[in-house]
Amino acid sequence: MNPTTLRRVAVLGTGVIGTSIALALRRADVHVGLYDLDTEVVAEAEAMGAGVALSPDDPPADVVVIATPPSTVVGVLRDAQECELGVVYTDVASTKARIFTDAELAGCDFTTYVPGHPMAGRELSGPRAARADLFTGRPWALCPHPETPPGPVRAVAELVELCGGEAKVIAPDAHDRVVAAVSHAPHLVSAALAARFATADDTMLSLVGKGLQDVTRIATGAPSLWCDILQQNADPVAAVLDAVVRDLTEVACALRNSDHAGSGPLADLLTRGNHGREHIVDRVSVEGARSRA
Amino acid sequence: MNPTTLRRVAVLGTGVIGTSIALALRRADVHVGLYDLDTEVVAEAEAMGAGVALSPDDPPADVVVIATPPSTVVGVLRDAQECELGVVYTDVASTKARIFTDAELAGCDFTTYVPGHPMAGRELSGPRAARADLFTGRPWALCPHPETPPGPVRAVAELVELCGGEAKVIAPDAHDRVVAAVSHAPHLVSAALAARFATADDTMLSLVGKGLQDVTRIATGAPSLWCDILQQNADPVAAVLDAVVRDLTEVACALRNSDHAGSGPLADLLTRGNHGREHIVDRVSVEGARSRA
Repeated sequence: MNPTTLRRVAVLGTGVIGTSIALALRRADVHVGLYDLDTEVVAEAEAMGAGVALSPDDPPADVVVIATPPSTVVGVLRDAQECELGVVYTDVASTKARIFTDAELAGCDFTTYVPGHPMAGRELSGPRAARADLFTGRPWALCPHPETPPGPVRAVAELVELCGGEAKVIAPDAHDRVVAAVSHAPHLVSAALAARFATADDTMLSLVGKGLQDVTRIATGAPSLWCDILQQNADPVAAVLDAVVRDLTEVACALRNSDHAGSGPLADLLTRGNHGREHIVDRVSVEGARSRA
Repeated sequence: MNPTTLRRVAVLGTGVIGTSIALALRRADVHVGLYDLDTEVVAEAEAMGAGVALSPDDPPADVVVIATPPSTVVGVLRDAQECELGVVYTDVASTKARIFTDAELAGCDFTTYVPGHPMAGRELSGPRAARADLFTGRPWALCPHPETPPGPVRAVAELVELCGGEAKVIAPDAHDRVVAAVSHAPHLVSAALAARFATADDTMLSLVGKGLQDVTRIATGAPSLWCDILQQNADPVAAVLDAVVRDLTEVACALRNSDHAGSGPLADLLTRGNHGREHIVDRVSVEGARSRA
């Protein structure tokens, strides 16, 4: 790893993502100041070695990481910039377009703010679920505004690198469409499968196997946080759901209407599923090889 | 493990499931005779130590395992019973109700046939993907006919035990409804998510993470085999797909129609998803603890 110019980072919001970033930075000997509305979770993060509680006397941080729920990011950013908490600001929210627009409307300073989104998470929440290696080898989207100078982008990219992530620059709209397909819509589809077992009896559960476990693994996480995320990315998520619904409706119809001739839509969906899965696996292999290199 | 009374088993169909059963039985020193329409895959299975090619001079097997695609099971069973290939017969097809009815119509002898279905599989196919421990701790459904005497059921249960599986007796209709929910519909839903990436560009693939990998893991397998399986279980699978489609349609609509008030259906689905996932995880923990005990 290159020598770092980051000396001091402030993490606002010490949930699982904020605390994982703090732990990764502490490993690289960066000073980390921690803040959360809930002082108990700050104490938990401190006890895990994630840093020390942020103090009003602290000098401005090189980077301020806003790790609060998506709908709160712009308010926290505006306040942080107003009281000059740091030199550069980023966030970790999993939606970007609306935050981008709202931050412009709120008059936030884009010369020091670089929106970000690490593509990693855990089913568990809170600082105790944090892990220093959560971001190792994982993509980390950065969506800099055209008016942001290179310095702040480099500073945030350096933070990503210290956390072991792979920075990918992408426009906010493109980010949201991609994340709807790779994360937000899959979360809802996984929930819709898991929901079939919300009132399942013993017979229904008697034959549960590894396949169902895998498919429903992401059907966890606090509904309130996920409502917030999904509503911030409503149209792109709804568009992916529409496409999934179209495919499944056609297949259900084909299954009901014929014994043999109906294999057209069925074979077509299974074949497209095979191809899509190959692309996903190939990409992950490429990324894995790159991060090991 | 109790001393076995199984000395000799014939496996008809040496794909991944048939060969895995053969490998597990060889570990317990059972003589295994192998047969497949494709003599090359028999040779592959033999080379892996799964047994020896079935010979016309072999004495009747204690149990004949029919490990061919679902739509072929009844024909293979009738032929095997006619030439008295064994004393007891079972199959491993992942649908049961239609095979049950078709076997009755074809005049198969249910005093010696115990339909079965091991709840384990691999994304890969063919004998080379076989593993002796594929069934360890996994449920294995048995759907005996009311007229089947206890002896043949015990013989097949013993085969399940030698393979490390957990025999669960269940009626064919109930089996198919359960399997539609735990395996067949999830396969199609996983395919419908993966299908979104069949023509994905680099931007779309740039942010692929672990969640999407897990949700699409089962979107593999030969479309021809899966068409066969799904068409054999058409109505139960279509019923689960309908329920998933209903949930996703409602959520897509709520996402489009409101910023904040629309969280009702969204929060409801996410909460039911949480509960369903808890049931699935609890069950797997219970089974895991039982199989370790």
